[in-house]
Amino acid sequence: MTWTNPLRDPRDRRLPRIAGPCGMVLFGVTGDLSRKKIMPAIYDLANRGLLPPGFSLVGFARRDWADQDFAQIVHDSVKSYARTEFREEVWKQLAEGFRFVQGDFDDDEAFEQLRQTTEELDRTRGTEGNHAFYLAIPPGFFGTVAAQLKEHGLADPDGDSWRRVVVEKPFGHDLESAQALNASLAEVFPSGSIFRIDHYLGKETVQNILATRFSNMMFEPLWNNNYVDHVQITMAEDVGIGGRAGYYDGIGAARDVIQNHLLQLMSLVAMEEPTSFDADSLRIEKQKVLASVKLPRRLDLATARGQYAAGWAGGEKVAGFLEEDGIRATSRTETFAAITLHVETRRWAGVPFYLRTGKRLGRRVTEVAVVFKRAPHQPFSASSVEELTQNALVIRIQPDEGMTLRFGSKVPGTAMEIRDVNMDFAYGGSFTEDSPEAYERLILDVLLGDPPLFPRHEEVELSWKILDPILEAWERKGKPEQYGSGTWGPSSADKMLARDGRVWRRP
Amino acid sequence: MTWTNPLRDPRDRRLPRIAGPCGMVLFGVTGDLSRKKIMPAIYDLANRGLLPPGFSLVGFARRDWADQDFAQIVHDSVKSYARTEFREEVWKQLAEGFRFVQGDFDDDEAFEQLRQTTEELDRTRGTEGNHAFYLAIPPGFFGTVAAQLKEHGLADPDGDSWRRVVVEKPFGHDLESAQALNASLAEVFPSGSIFRIDHYLGKETVQNILATRFSNMMFEPLWNNNYVDHVQITMAEDVGIGGRAGYYDGIGAARDVIQNHLLQLMSLVAMEEPTSFDADSLRIEKQKVLASVKLPRRLDLATARGQYAAGWAGGEKVAGFLEEDGIRATSRTETFAAITLHVETRRWAGVPFYLRTGKRLGRRVTEVAVVFKRAPHQPFSASSVEELTQNALVIRIQPDEGMTLRFGSKVPGTAMEIRDVNMDFAYGGSFTEDSPEAYERLILDVLLGDPPLFPRHEEVELSWKILDPILEAWERKGKPEQYGSGTWGPSSADKMLARDGRVWRRP
Repeated sequence: MTWTNPLRDPRDRRLPRIAGPCGMVLFGVTGDLSRKKIMPAIYDLANRGLLPPGFSLVGFARRDWADQDFAQIVHDSVKSYARTEFREEVWKQLAEGFRFVQGDFDDDEAFEQLRQTTEELDRTRGTEGNHAFYLAIPPGFFGTVAAQLKEHGLADPDGDSWRRVVVEKPFGHDLESAQALNASLAEVFPSGSIFRIDHYLGKETVQNILATRFSNMMFEPLWNNNYVDHVQITMAEDVGIGGRAGYYDGIGAARDVIQNHLLQLMSLVAMEEPTSFDADSLRIEKQKVLASVKLPRRLDLATARGQYAAGWAGGEKVAGFLEEDGIRATSRTETFAAITLHVETRRWAGVPFYLRTGKRLGRRVTEVAVVFKRAPHQPFSASSVEELTQNALVIRIQPDEGMTLRFGSKVPGTAMEIRDVNMDFAYGGSFTEDSPEAYERLILDVLLGDPPLFPRHEEVELSWKILDPILEAWERKGKPEQYGSGTWGPSSADKMLARDGRVWRRP
Repeated sequence: MTWTNPLRDPRDRRLPRIAGPCGMVLFGVTGDLSRKKIMPAIYDLANRGLLPPGFSLVGFARRDWADQDFAQIVHDSVKSYARTEFREEVWKQLAEGFRFVQGDFDDDEAFEQLRQTTEELDRTRGTEGNHAFYLAIPPGFFGTVAAQLKEHGLADPDGDSWRRVVVEKPFGHDLESAQALNASLAEVFPSGSIFRIDHYLGKETVQNILATRFSNMMFEPLWNNNYVDHVQITMAEDVGIGGRAGYYDGIGAARDVIQNHLLQLMSLVAMEEPTSFDADSLRIEKQKVLASVKLPRRLDLATARGQYAAGWAGGEKVAGFLEEDGIRATSRTETFAAITLHVETRRWAGVPFYLRTGKRLGRRVTEVAVVFKRAPHQPFSASSVEELTQNALVIRIQPDEGMTLRFGSKVPGTAMEIRDVNMDFAYGGSFTEDSPEAYERLILDVLLGDPPLFPRHEEVELSWKILDPILEAWERKGKPEQYGSGTWGPSSADKMLARDGRVWRRP
């Protein structure tokens, strides 16, 4: 049963929603994700008063730790990475709900102990049988852990209580593996209890795409192929693969970023107005977009990929991808990927969506640029508008969250000269409210059982259907092109747009 | 003949246009307009290299001055009010072309001397018979001076040379007087040689209305009654009438500001795309707007007027309008005027244009606000959008030149709450180019014979046709309502919008 705050009207979505009695079991407590994101977010939620008083966190790992050791790990992580101020009284209350269970994923005894621990928490902390299992572990273990949870009676709630499972990308490496992964979870948990985290969907600026499009009068009339020339969706990183060679090699940029973040962003930009903002209505609209995607016929011309070469980045000499520790010198894994997609609907037919992502690019930036057609007629002389490009609405996802509108304006002076100017809205400057971290929002939604921001398995599978033929074409093609660290990717990416008479933004 | 710079392509409108050989005769050299605007603008044009080397300026006034006295007057005015830096060499060259002629407007001898002076300049300075007569004098004298110019052979050019006359508002006080005034000028000068200055049209931000609307793709699709709810055009002054009682009493806010500035602004906002930006094409479109204006049936409900009362403004105690020096205690002259107009075209039917102007209001500001309808449907809950108002595009004419877009955006936080935010473009921050003063632009256009920014007599007369019935209704109605200094005008103005379910912006 969801706990209801008697002081609030449940229809009022503006009041902070507070999770009812519950706890979380965290698998993979020593990983980067747990340390840098999950544990700090839990503290931040507690600090904001959004967790129930008896909230409990159980760590599960192979290490031989006592509860105190685990508490120390969480403490260090919170001190280093929490967004909000450290408050002793919040910490103390939160830490009373920490437990640690030692074991391997195939260790029946450990899962038995986990069951006893959750039952103890239900009695002593009032978690009332409501537990979320957060699998911050490699996807290869999802099936094993899910089966163990089922076998030891942890997956099935009693009475009104709930059990939920939380997983992180990658959701497979192609359609077939994704289906197998989904199946292994679906054997244990009903679809509504599986929460797939795509942390981009927890970002304020991403949620704001829908708020901006549908709460206003002035954007939707322009949001179609009468006015839009094309859309560019970019997620650029300035860093290389860092210590993640083991994860990255064989995965690459398209699977790591396009399959999830960029296709989800595209769905939000391209979708029709949903009936409401509940999970099912949103999912239906996102699926319609993904199901309408058509790949260009010539995948060799309409996609591009590359690997970063040695060079300089941020004033330091950096190794090329093939020289990175843990990467095979013959690796064909791409660190840059760009693809052209067509959304074959009445609204978008003829408007290409260009998606690109890469490591070691010029700047760390994620943005959606809706680029409008040129005015159908220019009453000004050709020389007056020589320096005028196309109007564009740029949604800046990160950093520097906000929106920019690029349009033509008269240059001051006695002649009529028109040039691009930017109109700007900065999220940070416009609101006194702090933006919660994506993980705060998403973990709270898991505990509330509020699923709109989590992609469903249908979306995951549709995304793989889009990507698989591209990945196969690349596989056949051989080595990716090298590109200089600190540039904006391989020349084939520029040529890909040049063929359509367009250019990438340099954000 | 217009002097052509051999180095430039005449079709390239981006290069600065330079006036050919010419001079100007200035009537009313001791007035505020001459001292604060015209003479500084002439220096600024010279300083920018936009005047011909032999440019000459002849002052005409009753004072018993020598050429040197006149030069001193210009010098003081330039030192106090010029926009650009004082440069001795520019001043020296300019001052060599200064002459002064003493006389009354009905003094034949003086006009004879004026003719000799211009002929002398043609010989010694190479002005080649090209002279502009700037009548910076009360309109009551326009006819007399024009007739004198004709009689003494000053109005008619020889061969390829030109003669032009420049006049300032008020262009009459109703349709009949405007027609008489136009007739008295038209007897002497052909229509294309009469330049009526509405200095608002020389403002960069006003010219930018057309650049923004027609050079871009994204504004025109929204610029009609499908999307626009209403338009508010405001020119607010924070000062009172100052020392201008003699001019202002009997004229009032509607004649002083709405008849010219605000109706011209409305024409630019509402007009269709012109065939080109030459004077005739622009005039046709502006006239079409003015000719399509329909007044509301109930003028008593759809207009408002007021007089400022004593009070406080800017920390000082200030007198009410009726207590000002030189104002009759029984004066019915309005210092605030607000009117509702309908532009009966396919594009604008059903979209009211609200025009208002006043003295001693909360702040000095001129702006055009295009206020959009609410979104036809809100997929968000009513409480989510409680604080969301209507989208608006605000063109800030002065001060703080630029544009603001108001739209709804998600408030950071775990709930879906949508609130108004502003996206901003500041003219000053976006261009390194300095904005020339309106008078620089307009005087240069007079010397170039480039008339697009000057209203023609047809527009002046159409504007009076709109205003006359309102002024008559007010005349019948008696005393204007009093409003507090520093407020936003009389309560009747708020009621006027409230009847339509709308509110004025507080800019």
